[in-house]
Amino acid sequence: MALKEDLYRRIKGLQDKMLAHDCDAVLILQNVDLYYFSGTMQNARLYVPAEGEPLLFCRKSLTRAANECPWNIIPSQNYKYIPDHIKEMGYPSPARLGLEFDVIPVTLYHSVQRLFPDSTLLDASGWIGDLRAIKTPYEIAIIKAAGKKMADVFKVLPELIKPGLSELEIAARVEKELRDHEHMGLSRMRGFNQEFFYGHFLSGSNACMASFNDGVTAGMGMGAFYPQGPGNRVIQIGDPVYLDYVGVFEGYNVDQTRLYVVGDLAHRLKYAFQVALEIQETLVTLAKPGVMASELYDTAVSIAEKAGLSHNFMGYGAERVRFVGHGVGLELDERPVIAPGFNTPLEAGMVIALEPKFVLPGLGIAGIENTWLLTPTGVEKITVLPDEIGAIPLA
Amino acid sequence: MALKEDLYRRIKGLQDKMLAHDCDAVLILQNVDLYYFSGTMQNARLYVPAEGEPLLFCRKSLTRAANECPWNIIPSQNYKYIPDHIKEMGYPSPARLGLEFDVIPVTLYHSVQRLFPDSTLLDASGWIGDLRAIKTPYEIAIIKAAGKKMADVFKVLPELIKPGLSELEIAARVEKELRDHEHMGLSRMRGFNQEFFYGHFLSGSNACMASFNDGVTAGMGMGAFYPQGPGNRVIQIGDPVYLDYVGVFEGYNVDQTRLYVVGDLAHRLKYAFQVALEIQETLVTLAKPGVMASELYDTAVSIAEKAGLSHNFMGYGAERVRFVGHGVGLELDERPVIAPGFNTPLEAGMVIALEPKFVLPGLGIAGIENTWLLTPTGVEKITVLPDEIGAIPLA
Repeated sequence: MALKEDLYRRIKGLQDKMLAHDCDAVLILQNVDLYYFSGTMQNARLYVPAEGEPLLFCRKSLTRAANECPWNIIPSQNYKYIPDHIKEMGYPSPARLGLEFDVIPVTLYHSVQRLFPDSTLLDASGWIGDLRAIKTPYEIAIIKAAGKKMADVFKVLPELIKPGLSELEIAARVEKELRDHEHMGLSRMRGFNQEFFYGHFLSGSNACMASFNDGVTAGMGMGAFYPQGPGNRVIQIGDPVYLDYVGVFEGYNVDQTRLYVVGDLAHRLKYAFQVALEIQETLVTLAKPGVMASELYDTAVSIAEKAGLSHNFMGYGAERVRFVGHGVGLELDERPVIAPGFNTPLEAGMVIALEPKFVLPGLGIAGIENTWLLTPTGVEKITVLPDEIGAIPLA
Repeated sequence: MALKEDLYRRIKGLQDKMLAHDCDAVLILQNVDLYYFSGTMQNARLYVPAEGEPLLFCRKSLTRAANECPWNIIPSQNYKYIPDHIKEMGYPSPARLGLEFDVIPVTLYHSVQRLFPDSTLLDASGWIGDLRAIKTPYEIAIIKAAGKKMADVFKVLPELIKPGLSELEIAARVEKELRDHEHMGLSRMRGFNQEFFYGHFLSGSNACMASFNDGVTAGMGMGAFYPQGPGNRVIQIGDPVYLDYVGVFEGYNVDQTRLYVVGDLAHRLKYAFQVALEIQETLVTLAKPGVMASELYDTAVSIAEKAGLSHNFMGYGAERVRFVGHGVGLELDERPVIAPGFNTPLEAGMVIALEPKFVLPGLGIAGIENTWLLTPTGVEKITVLPDEIGAIPLA
């Protein structure tokens, strides 16, 4: 089974990081990392020693974990016995133990410290993020299939969008179409306080409203309690309709944005859309292993400046965000971040969403987003839908 | 505005806890707590001193935060200046600073410690959980409206469930119906690694499959990458169909489970359903301010035992969970937990989901779940839908 071979490779990757950083073991606690390194997302803790086979301590469901995970599975009604089990299995007590500092809560951190009072706890989240950034062949096959599904769904969108319906009413139809294509429903994000539900279906100038989130766009949402995504605005003739949707299939996210229009698009939005396409074209020509993530960002900014749109690029004025793309995978916000200061070279196997977008207050948003696979020589388009602006029939 | 009065009361409640625990200030970092104490969920940090008015440090969107939050708002492009701002506003540096240890990640905890090197950081999550357990009149009105919407949606369910369709296909229809009623989409859970998407639409004996989650039921889900909820099983004549759905309206969760059947229900499931109703009836007669949460649990267990169903109560065999209910509110997993050892008295204003359920391997699940408001004298039913088993037309 392809996943099983992949799991060996992933564990080896983590063990290499541990050896390079003088770390004796990593205890994986978060559900997505657990799935990545063990194949199961059951209630379990994965102990990965720097050398030797991992141990999966599992509370429930043991049956499911045993079906999904190739590692040694140890039934554990209470995780406080993990240090004892580790000794029994012949592993030394870890002097330096890695944890996912970026996601585990303080309470859990303190309880691990109590279990391993003599261990120095250190942050393993960077190693995990770097490993997960490079997708394996098993993952790439799933991600490519997800890109095709998103194309299938977006092709039927013009039939779902009708002037006179609200953003929320149409979003409900889009969500059902995605779900009928076996969309997982949930989009998982790693960042603290970040959350996302299917997509940003935004129309007209409402689309320009910024919010808490780390993304370029937000929209009004349904209220202060969920301040992003579709709201009650009714679609009208002449509206630009902006769909930034995340396809989640078999656990993997792909990110895609397209514009639709009811009637004719305002001239300035058309212009900004052309500039966004130009940025995309330039970046995908530039992107290849060895090129710095920050170089892509700087290039995008300089094209936006030349086009006279620097104040509208990736937000408006003081509320612009400083990135033009991000990795995607089991989570929506993965490495690399295509942003200033990220002087990490691109590598083959990375999957990145590039999203040059312009916010034109009073008018709406114009931009494009596709997900791309880094190959040894360049990039391959994952979200295979054509880039053009979709026309919504008037009746 | 009712929310504004509520916010003053909530802050006062937190300040009372601080004074009782010799704490000088709490820095609210998590989005849901932020919304609860400030009225906004923008990118912001809320500093609540033990005495005096809170300060909201806001990165973006300032416009939205200013519209939603009555506290003093301080624009903050970089949160590292928070200690300076606190001094400038005339507040003393906190000797003891409370944080939400149950949800904030280690990285953030360490960065707060660097900002306040002389402060002792302590866990404020228990105080927040206890406060949020008692719903205010503003919250109760929203929760009651949510209960009515869930009744409206469940009334049309028999038209959506058709033998020959898969769980997932029908779930997509149920989700659209909920969304058309302005369901928020997201269900927020506080517990680490807990996640939930709309509901558990489960059929036949597949429904008995346990999983990672802290709930009674899980089901197969779509795969190891999302191991709960509806899967590909096709509904057949004679199937029990189990719907445990969370209504999220205006940010607030209500929890409701109903059984439906295509044709005739197996005798043992009918019997277990009657026992579940008996448990519910006993618990809601017993529940009132002053009664211990654990007493409700013990009572439920003893009725299950007398009925000869103790091995099937709240799961099967070793995979049973040890609770019979939980608080709901802005998050699905709130206080109180109706479980052994929770010797906290019920209080007026609490909103709890009670869910006596039996797992009968090979047959399915029988049980009921409703959300209840604790009043000064007893309970009031929030999920007003009748409790009976729904009949699905055969054609």
